[in-house]
Amino acid sequence: MTTTTIAVDAMGGDHGPSVIVPACADFLAQHTLAELILVGREDALQAELARAGLGRHERVRVVAASEVVGMDEDVKTAIRKKRDSSMRVAIDQVKSGQAQGCISAGNTGALMGTAKFVLKTIPGIDRPAICAVLPTRTGQVYALDLGANAECEPEHLLQFGIMGAMLCEAVDGKSNPSVGLLNIGSEEIKGNDTVKRAGDLLKRSHLNFYGNVEGTDIFKGTTDVVVCDGFVGNVMLKTAEGAGKMIGDFLKAELTRNPFTKLLALPALPMIQRFKTRVDSRRYNGAAMLGLAGIVVKSHGSADRLAFATALERTYREIDHDLIGKISLRLAALDAEGLLKPSPVSPQSAGLAASV
Amino acid sequence: MTTTTIAVDAMGGDHGPSVIVPACADFLAQHTLAELILVGREDALQAELARAGLGRHERVRVVAASEVVGMDEDVKTAIRKKRDSSMRVAIDQVKSGQAQGCISAGNTGALMGTAKFVLKTIPGIDRPAICAVLPTRTGQVYALDLGANAECEPEHLLQFGIMGAMLCEAVDGKSNPSVGLLNIGSEEIKGNDTVKRAGDLLKRSHLNFYGNVEGTDIFKGTTDVVVCDGFVGNVMLKTAEGAGKMIGDFLKAELTRNPFTKLLALPALPMIQRFKTRVDSRRYNGAAMLGLAGIVVKSHGSADRLAFATALERTYREIDHDLIGKISLRLAALDAEGLLKPSPVSPQSAGLAASV
Repeated sequence: MTTTTIAVDAMGGDHGPSVIVPACADFLAQHTLAELILVGREDALQAELARAGLGRHERVRVVAASEVVGMDEDVKTAIRKKRDSSMRVAIDQVKSGQAQGCISAGNTGALMGTAKFVLKTIPGIDRPAICAVLPTRTGQVYALDLGANAECEPEHLLQFGIMGAMLCEAVDGKSNPSVGLLNIGSEEIKGNDTVKRAGDLLKRSHLNFYGNVEGTDIFKGTTDVVVCDGFVGNVMLKTAEGAGKMIGDFLKAELTRNPFTKLLALPALPMIQRFKTRVDSRRYNGAAMLGLAGIVVKSHGSADRLAFATALERTYREIDHDLIGKISLRLAALDAEGLLKPSPVSPQSAGLAASV
Repeated sequence: MTTTTIAVDAMGGDHGPSVIVPACADFLAQHTLAELILVGREDALQAELARAGLGRHERVRVVAASEVVGMDEDVKTAIRKKRDSSMRVAIDQVKSGQAQGCISAGNTGALMGTAKFVLKTIPGIDRPAICAVLPTRTGQVYALDLGANAECEPEHLLQFGIMGAMLCEAVDGKSNPSVGLLNIGSEEIKGNDTVKRAGDLLKRSHLNFYGNVEGTDIFKGTTDVVVCDGFVGNVMLKTAEGAGKMIGDFLKAELTRNPFTKLLALPALPMIQRFKTRVDSRRYNGAAMLGLAGIVVKSHGSADRLAFATALERTYREIDHDLIGKISLRLAALDAEGLLKPSPVSPQSAGLAASV
């Protein structure tokens, strides 16, 4: 029987060990064979472990790291100057084989940069991408890239499609998931040049390519996977987050406007609670950093106990379903067909690439 | 006393005259000096006018147009082959001075293309942009471009900032409105090359430039105006629309799950109604096509009576506040400082521009 071990950057995020350690306790109770390596300042961690009833737990190991990467620290500083950070040491555990995956609620840029530096990418992938699950009317959708690559070539969008489909297939067991290309109109003529060329590549890729999708399609659940560059994806994700938060707050404001409205709203509270659960972003926490030669999951920096436990669960499932092995196999097959390499670089695209 | 005259493409949109004519009646009742020119098939219009109590109305004139631009028709067909379409003839009314502005619920691409062909742009503007108002926690925000320009140079984003600020200033009377540049991080180093260079231009523009904003800032109301390219803006708008619709439908589903939940929700209905009014997209209908040398407003294709009347109201206010005159003045001042012209075109940007 094999055990699954996850390395946890226990110092990352807005709350650090006070939220992460209790979430680890929840996770360990769910998965009775899983093991965790908690990385961070030993004194802080031991205190929290004792508080969470995990002192001397047989499936918890503490690995000391003396530094913490700040939420606003840049990638270069994180890589060059913080070699003993909890983030770096957690990633090192994956590199050395001590863990099969790692998770951090720390700064996204530093996590992606450090992970890429330490773990490298899967052969055939030029650029790792950030992929998260979003709720839809009918279930959920995997969307990528959500911010790792502000500018992309068509070939990168193809690679994102492959990785997103593999994630959906591996973790949700969905066979041949559909992939949509985020565009500004469903007609083929619309969109910019990069997106048009990406559409051509996706059509030839043997993926279950649906074609163009629009912003409204994301939450309709039109496809299982939605692909876009990291600039568009980041704006999309944060817009949805902002719109959802505003709408929720407006509803709350109306219901709690005065003691009278509060009283009237009382009978409806159980239904409103169910509604809230359905759109609770904590249930969708944990973005996969796809394309790295190792499993790395990013939790939202402000994650609470439930949200961090959700992200741990995702990490576990990616390991359990051999995500890296599956992506690598599919990529090797596509590479053999010559579908992964960027086409000969034109002066125009060279200019773009240089500016990234 | 001057009257304001708006030309209405009465055949456009999903519903045509059956929705547009009643909306016109509502508008005329609100504005007792305004006049409308309804453009379309005379028989269809006269029947609807009679039904709406506008038969032989002294402030309504019907101008016949024998054709209608289809919702999926491309710009070239609209311009070359449908010279007697209701859309084209409505725009012609502005060109000839019969009307001071026009409105259509027809196909966005055809409307923008035809309007640009007939009316041309304001000197100093290379590319008109689509600008809509969105609700925020604290009020509203003008966002542009929402889809007219899938690829932009930094100078275009500057021009969008100027036009958006002028719209906010002219229509809402807000002096020196703040302008945010939509980006994927608030730090200056983030984002792609175009956005970085646009930030530099905006800083030097004498606009009240706030700096970078993110997707979450849009609905927070961080700035009065948000600027982005048309690809990003279109995804942003449709994502917000899709997320809002999904959340609303989830709430409705929980409250009406069964007769028992319906009963329990009953006392809360007035508050839920107020909440719905607050996020009702119909109250934000009517996008300005900014940068044209004439006022053109695009209504949502699926607009109902209330939504179309809202868009008519916006058209009226843009005319009433001399939007074109104000934008032209500001542009002339900036042009004199050499801040409007794109930098010498590199092979790279020439390639991009050609592909739009």
